[in-house]
Amino acid sequence: MASSLTSFGGHLSIIELASGVKQASKTLALASSTQKNHALLLMAEMLIVGMDSILSANESDLKRAVASDLGDASIDRLILNEARLLAMADQIKEVVQLADPIGEITDGYLLPNGLRVRRERVPLGVVGIIYENRPNVTSDSAALCIKSGNAAFLRGSSAAISSNLAIADLIASALEKSGLPRQAVTIMRETSRESAVDFMNLSGYIDCLIPRGGRSLLDTVRANAKVPVIIDGDGNCHIFVDATADVASAKRIIANSKMQRPGVCNAVETVLLHEKIAPQILEDITSFLPNVEIRGDDFVCSLVPTAKRASEQDFATEFLDLILAVKVVTDMDEAISHIATYGSGHSEAILTSDFVNANRFTREVDAAAVLVNTSTRFVDGNQLGLGAEIGISTQKLHARGPMGLKALTCERYVIEGDGQIRP
Amino acid sequence: MASSLTSFGGHLSIIELASGVKQASKTLALASSTQKNHALLLMAEMLIVGMDSILSANESDLKRAVASDLGDASIDRLILNEARLLAMADQIKEVVQLADPIGEITDGYLLPNGLRVRRERVPLGVVGIIYENRPNVTSDSAALCIKSGNAAFLRGSSAAISSNLAIADLIASALEKSGLPRQAVTIMRETSRESAVDFMNLSGYIDCLIPRGGRSLLDTVRANAKVPVIIDGDGNCHIFVDATADVASAKRIIANSKMQRPGVCNAVETVLLHEKIAPQILEDITSFLPNVEIRGDDFVCSLVPTAKRASEQDFATEFLDLILAVKVVTDMDEAISHIATYGSGHSEAILTSDFVNANRFTREVDAAAVLVNTSTRFVDGNQLGLGAEIGISTQKLHARGPMGLKALTCERYVIEGDGQIRP
Repeated sequence: MASSLTSFGGHLSIIELASGVKQASKTLALASSTQKNHALLLMAEMLIVGMDSILSANESDLKRAVASDLGDASIDRLILNEARLLAMADQIKEVVQLADPIGEITDGYLLPNGLRVRRERVPLGVVGIIYENRPNVTSDSAALCIKSGNAAFLRGSSAAISSNLAIADLIASALEKSGLPRQAVTIMRETSRESAVDFMNLSGYIDCLIPRGGRSLLDTVRANAKVPVIIDGDGNCHIFVDATADVASAKRIIANSKMQRPGVCNAVETVLLHEKIAPQILEDITSFLPNVEIRGDDFVCSLVPTAKRASEQDFATEFLDLILAVKVVTDMDEAISHIATYGSGHSEAILTSDFVNANRFTREVDAAAVLVNTSTRFVDGNQLGLGAEIGISTQKLHARGPMGLKALTCERYVIEGDGQIRP
Repeated sequence: MASSLTSFGGHLSIIELASGVKQASKTLALASSTQKNHALLLMAEMLIVGMDSILSANESDLKRAVASDLGDASIDRLILNEARLLAMADQIKEVVQLADPIGEITDGYLLPNGLRVRRERVPLGVVGIIYENRPNVTSDSAALCIKSGNAAFLRGSSAAISSNLAIADLIASALEKSGLPRQAVTIMRETSRESAVDFMNLSGYIDCLIPRGGRSLLDTVRANAKVPVIIDGDGNCHIFVDATADVASAKRIIANSKMQRPGVCNAVETVLLHEKIAPQILEDITSFLPNVEIRGDDFVCSLVPTAKRASEQDFATEFLDLILAVKVVTDMDEAISHIATYGSGHSEAILTSDFVNANRFTREVDAAAVLVNTSTRFVDGNQLGLGAEIGISTQKLHARGPMGLKALTCERYVIEGDGQIRP
């Protein structure tokens, strides 16, 4: 019998591992919803049953992290405890509740020659996920891939390797118990930089690669990946406060967009103020944005004594922190043009009570999500009702914006006839 | 006033050209259907009005082609004449008749917190097309891009450069006359290999690159492109003739799939015969496939005296010619496994009268299109009712199978509220 170690690549080459995942993906593609949900429930259960093994693996990751001075923020992302494991199990159970996208007929018609044509939603095959220190990504990604009939090929960071292996081992056991192949969730044991690049180049083995992490990971993927990629990219998000915006509501929305969770991609990074409304917003900006560093243009600095002078670079920066760039514009043209120059195509909002301006903004601004009179923080798969989310795509091909289960599928043609030939 | 030459890159760097196309794409994205259709009709008209200039440019391409011994097939693809130009104009007029995909609301709902969410179909932006000798690709691609609100950045072959420039110049004039920017259809004047690679690396300027051509072009794109790509890939298509297939119908379908147009990607390249039906199909294969070279396994060679012995390589080859590989299999498992090994994920057909086998084949075979009891030649945008087609995608992300106008669009979220913030 193979030990749990060899099944995670202890003695297997990356190609052998990838072949195993690919083979498993064929079984997953044909598994019924009932079978997939059964496996997911077992996975959730195993995370609880196996809690001790995960926590002890996590402890060894944490010891290494502390010894190597990983930094507080990174260590926080790495920590697992009972509450976090319960949350991971709950997350899997939520995925069970989602509708299975596989088999949906998205289109269908009869051609004049009698051919019956339909388009069916099918899994992508093998989804590769490359991620950083959060061990919960291991179980979240596995659950979304299994539910959508895909095999998951995972590559986490070296810092989290013990935790990830412990989690993946339990998941593999759950898959096996439910009659699905363990290799349907496979994690790379090898975590060197070279192996990451090898991973990104597994053409023919990985149908779609989703990097989940910060800018340097994304840059590495952009520069090296030869397999198809969905980029969950930067969020340099803007709010444009139009002249006719409701001032009190605007302040609440800006505060929510900046402070509700500053470290995430859908937090606002730059606020553009129409010059007619700017004084009313700026007069108490330090009150409704407490502890937020304001980096503004001349006008802003003249009204906000604590503001720093914004550099060109500030407008191009995704701070992911309690820092906000603020700029006063003379009209909507200037706002739209600023967003076109600096925006990353993630989420862009206008606050206005003007019907024409609201419509013009939503038509002309090119982003995965455009919002009117609401917080940028709503651009999120859960908030938008997609259920769990595997990321927020800032690319245009395949998926744009929050990605739920359907982003992990594709559609193919089925064409049935009774002897038709082409004239 | 800029001459028509400078507007096609006579004195502009590739980045200057690309910036012009990108700028033009913003106007195109907001153009109405009426305006786009008007431009298309003018384009069709200009191709007829300007026929002499195109034919004389084509003559100079042909002279160079003959002088450089380009080969008969390539020269045939290069030739333009009155009939072909009329067909190009008609093709544009057909695109006018297609529904405009832009602005379609593909999904929409009200969230419990009162936010109104909708997904809207929008253009990709700049579509890059890199192609080989057929000058009609210039006008076909331009028409599909304009109709779908995209700007087209075109890069044809050096052999067709004079014809392409003449066509593009007329198209640009038509755009200008209809009030749209000439740069919305821009063709590269420079046709060196280096410039092709530069073209594939225009990140931030090309939203989607579609190569239209043979294997060497695809390989170059796969190896070099840094921009998002849709691969219109190889078609190593199979027909599996199950034991219960109608023999007469099977022969008609095989003949149609192989011979109706052998040089295209949806032609069949390998036929797999269930051993129970193989003798009936093989007994007159040289009659129903006249002039087709048969490359078969031992069984086939024993029944077909003129057959050559198929090599392993033959089963992996897209012949694009009057050559057919034939293999006898003992059951459907062997057929499905052969297709999984050698197929390119394009179009795969089963001929059968068995309900269970038909369903199993369509479920288990992983391809852009799976067919039952009909010719692989139907896997084509026009035949499937999509109208004009920009290619047949063999990748899984974004578009799979024949690509019509919708493949040139993406969907984005519009989220409207009245002050909602995230709790």
